[in-house]
Amino acid sequence: MTTTNDTDYSTLKLDVPEGDQSIAITRDFAATPDKVFRAHTDPEIFVKWCGPDTITNKIREWDAQTGGHWSYISTDDNGEYGFFGSFHEVRVNERIVQTFTFEGFPDAVNLEILTLTDLGDGRTRLSSTSIFDSVESRDEMVASGMEHGIVEGYNKLDRLLTQGQ
Amino acid sequence: MTTTNDTDYSTLKLDVPEGDQSIAITRDFAATPDKVFRAHTDPEIFVKWCGPDTITNKIREWDAQTGGHWSYISTDDNGEYGFFGSFHEVRVNERIVQTFTFEGFPDAVNLEILTLTDLGDGRTRLSSTSIFDSVESRDEMVASGMEHGIVEGYNKLDRLLTQGQ
Repeated sequence: MTTTNDTDYSTLKLDVPEGDQSIAITRDFAATPDKVFRAHTDPEIFVKWCGPDTITNKIREWDAQTGGHWSYISTDDNGEYGFFGSFHEVRVNERIVQTFTFEGFPDAVNLEILTLTDLGDGRTRLSSTSIFDSVESRDEMVASGMEHGIVEGYNKLDRLLTQGQ
Repeated sequence: MTTTNDTDYSTLKLDVPEGDQSIAITRDFAATPDKVFRAHTDPEIFVKWCGPDTITNKIREWDAQTGGHWSYISTDDNGEYGFFGSFHEVRVNERIVQTFTFEGFPDAVNLEILTLTDLGDGRTRLSSTSIFDSVESRDEMVASGMEHGIVEGYNKLDRLLTQGQ
């Protein structure tokens, strides 16, 4: 028997352990791992959902394979924000390890390890751990309202995956 | 007046804070930043000094620029060890941020932030912080004898830079 009691498609779980350098995120999607994976590696899909609702994304560089790199600009009413990073490892439908820098803080960098777990019945659990260069960097990222952008971004991804919008 | 009392060319400082996810290394070299930088980005120089004395390195891939990646194999009497990573950022003569995975532990990854500080008089301080995906990964790396390889590697680099050998 399969129960879905532990699956909450609308809620992001964010774990920010006190005094730690990392942030852990868990989010379930009503879509198969290959679809969630493709939404992270196909730039045309990625720009549609990444970031808060107020943002429009434009890809500068994108090579979603092990050893590749990426770069994009997000625009809202207040201006432009550039981001860049490397794809340390891309394991198809399973795992994406990448680096991330916001060009507004060029010396800050974090490493994200994202894994996809097949929950069966067309469901996928996304688990992401972001590791920062210090506890202070981690806390600044949290204070900047990062959670807001992640929640809105994954809600957009959820709608894309389940309703094609 | 310039004093060199705080410069110790032969000693590596290794800081492994209890319960932390990182390892911090400091090592001074009697060479200018551009020479220390080149020894990290020129693959023909890099293979000569990286790792313990018992190791021979062979480059598989190497593109030492922001967004590039690298891969090499180290060989000793016991076998071959593969490593790969990405160059998240390469700032000429100043800073190298890269990822690192030993293929023997394919799910482990760490992020290294290396900075070069010009101490004047042809001296450079190398500061490196490696951030691991967990405290456990960090402690396993330390327990594996990592320090031995780093000390011998930097001693080889020191001889290369100062004596050309």
